[in-house]
Amino acid sequence: MARKPRRKLFPPAPPVLLAALYSSLILLGTALLMLPIGTTRPISIGDALFTATSAVTVTGLSVVDAGTDLTLFGQIVVLVLIQIGGVGLMTFAVLLLSTLGVRIGTPSRNVLREDLNQGTAHDLMGLAGSVLRISLVVEAAGLVVLATVFVPEMGVVRGLWYALFHTVSAFNNAGFGLRADSLAPWVANPVINIAVPALFMIGGLGFVVISELVEKRRWRTLSLHSKLMLLGSAFLTIGGMIAFAVLEWTNPATLGGLETTGAKVTASWFQSVTTRTAGFSTLDLAHIHDSTALVMISLMLVGGGSASTAGGIKVTTLMVALLATVAFFQRSAPNAFGRRIGQEQVLKVMALTTIAMLTMLSGLFFVSISHDGDFLDLAFEIASAFGTTGLSRGATGKLDDIGRTVVIFLMFMGRVGPLTFGYLLATRQPPRVKFPEGRVHLG
Amino acid sequence: MARKPRRKLFPPAPPVLLAALYSSLILLGTALLMLPIGTTRPISIGDALFTATSAVTVTGLSVVDAGTDLTLFGQIVVLVLIQIGGVGLMTFAVLLLSTLGVRIGTPSRNVLREDLNQGTAHDLMGLAGSVLRISLVVEAAGLVVLATVFVPEMGVVRGLWYALFHTVSAFNNAGFGLRADSLAPWVANPVINIAVPALFMIGGLGFVVISELVEKRRWRTLSLHSKLMLLGSAFLTIGGMIAFAVLEWTNPATLGGLETTGAKVTASWFQSVTTRTAGFSTLDLAHIHDSTALVMISLMLVGGGSASTAGGIKVTTLMVALLATVAFFQRSAPNAFGRRIGQEQVLKVMALTTIAMLTMLSGLFFVSISHDGDFLDLAFEIASAFGTTGLSRGATGKLDDIGRTVVIFLMFMGRVGPLTFGYLLATRQPPRVKFPEGRVHLG
Ligand SMILES: [K+]
Ligand SMILES: [K+]
Repeated sequence: MARKPRRKLFPPAPPVLLAALYSSLILLGTALLMLPIGTTRPISIGDALFTATSAVTVTGLSVVDAGTDLTLFGQIVVLVLIQIGGVGLMTFAVLLLSTLGVRIGTPSRNVLREDLNQGTAHDLMGLAGSVLRISLVVEAAGLVVLATVFVPEMGVVRGLWYALFHTVSAFNNAGFGLRADSLAPWVANPVINIAVPALFMIGGLGFVVISELVEKRRWRTLSLHSKLMLLGSAFLTIGGMIAFAVLEWTNPATLGGLETTGAKVTASWFQSVTTRTAGFSTLDLAHIHDSTALVMISLMLVGGGSASTAGGIKVTTLMVALLATVAFFQRSAPNAFGRRIGQEQVLKVMALTTIAMLTMLSGLFFVSISHDGDFLDLAFEIASAFGTTGLSRGATGKLDDIGRTVVIFLMFMGRVGPLTFGYLLATRQPPRVKFPEGRVHLG
Repeated sequence: MARKPRRKLFPPAPPVLLAALYSSLILLGTALLMLPIGTTRPISIGDALFTATSAVTVTGLSVVDAGTDLTLFGQIVVLVLIQIGGVGLMTFAVLLLSTLGVRIGTPSRNVLREDLNQGTAHDLMGLAGSVLRISLVVEAAGLVVLATVFVPEMGVVRGLWYALFHTVSAFNNAGFGLRADSLAPWVANPVINIAVPALFMIGGLGFVVISELVEKRRWRTLSLHSKLMLLGSAFLTIGGMIAFAVLEWTNPATLGGLETTGAKVTASWFQSVTTRTAGFSTLDLAHIHDSTALVMISLMLVGGGSASTAGGIKVTTLMVALLATVAFFQRSAPNAFGRRIGQEQVLKVMALTTIAMLTMLSGLFFVSISHDGDFLDLAFEIASAFGTTGLSRGATGKLDDIGRTVVIFLMFMGRVGPLTFGYLLATRQPPRVKFPEGRVHLG
């Protein structure tokens, strides 16, 4: 309410710029994938557009098989799109948040908010550098660790390429693999089950949290944002793991088919952490129970952290919604860890969840008009697109052109952000009068 | 935030009282329906409990056929349960809202808020009298109008009983009928298609709006609440009608089976207005398209008006959520018709929608564990129970005991109110310190 409305045509508002950059990147990727050297068989422009969008939005839903349909050149194109789409947005999101007036966590606050608002090129570069440095260090570590698994199995060249591809894909939460069955051959491999989740969990926490963890290390000194993010992530990961294990333990098509308890627990762990946004899978999701699918849809819609390589409405959005609910019944202001959560933040959560809900419902509506498949499979696919998760129960391949267009739109929307879209669509007018308060009966 | 926390054991808090009263009424109804004179065939205690809950919560989901399984005595029991459950809660809700500190609309404000807070028996009686007077007048008019259709068809005694039963059932948004196919034989009858919707729309607007309309009649003088309620209802009714007509026009199992354009439009109108909470149907809903079912699920979850005979999260809750979303992007305070909507109201919407969402998801989850039916049918049935709508695609009859228990719980929850439950569960502690504000990144 206290924010000052700004309206400039040049330079364009950050969300306009962001949407434009992403669209350009997607179109460039589409063109490159259409080149004869990009694919082992001719693919349609629709397939190329879908693949480029899926890569840039780090979703991972796929209508072509990256391992067999794409050449090495095609795979490199996808990997570059993922890297720019993932880390690029992470950088951009921090700038965007700051421009929108949202404060960045304490450690970076001086660099980010105060200075960025003055818009000096030097500080922008410093920030981008910081994001890129973190990405480089984490990805280098991932490459080395994954190479220890892939190189002995496939030889040096192929093994290193596998390691690089999966490292970049994991850190950026893209979920693209080089096999149709994702990581299923390594369902019980301990290194894969620790290193890959480590990569996508770090990527999914978001720049603010990572940099605070690197700088501070002690829980007490972390910002409210980081505490809520870490607490919420732990809760969702453990809850998801327990739910998946309990529901699928005896299902012969999933966990029931694994021989040892250790393998079952490992697979439950992997499925819980991958569902919120990474999109790798080590099990065949077409055969999970309906109840499991419902849990996974919920996790996909929540997603990861703000200003991260993850999608969804974000963990902190869920946390603030829950805190606001508790606060309402306690007749107090929403608060956590000795910090009050401002009214403007509650308003933002309201706006975000409302838009997310309307987008999901509209997407599901349009796809269900054009496609008569199993409704739950469609809902799963739509949630996967909007949460840029990329997990699939197989419906994506069966969609017609309308369905694919909806999925492409949802991936873009899920990544560039419901808020950004709203920002684009909204007219901003300073309220001329302060209205007297009116009351509405609710519930 | 400015509200003063109160905590008394005697008299019990209004929500405790409300939940206790409703539970008692349900148990009494169950006992009466178990009597041999209540039914034409012996029914299980589970069936009796389900029927009593469905009647008291004015839902209308059914595991017995009121027309053939119940004797006249059993039908009278159901009708009395509906009348007490519908109008009783309407009265109670006004008291509850007022006790919770929510102001009642301007015309009644002096009577309701100021005086009720002083708790004199005289004003309570005046309020209850006002609600009952409105109910009596509307139901008497409904009885006369419906009798003109049923008496010529069925004779005086049966026709009057049909007219009375459907009047009470319609005004209280109960959706119970005396035939398994609801009102299907009258799909194109103009009197039924105007009188029945008129009854349930008036009942579903809520006491505050009705009394304002009676007293003021002019749009300009209505309260913010009534304006939002009327505008939202009109929007949802027209939108629902258009959506239903467009999606089902050529479906041979629904609108396509009707011969004239007039009949199709009439049926679309009826289906749009009945879906939000009344629960009567003139078409077979098992054969609507998936996309239509999704639209109907959304309408059922929204429901009708606060302090009315309707269920759902309520039209005004949706309106405030949309206004808050628009306000966020305009960087202004949520407002409509020259009135600002307070932060506390936004917090309430947040709490209500969060609880509604979690309840719906949990209900769907538990039913999908215990039942392997079509997922969309289950979602439809769950939304119908939670929105106390009572429309069915046939899944309710097929549920096992766990599924039925979930549906009974959801009907109770949907009627007594998510907020009431939260109120029961919440611990209220006055915040000792005013915390400094913290920031969280969202979206
Ligand atoms: K992904
Ligand atoms: K009903």
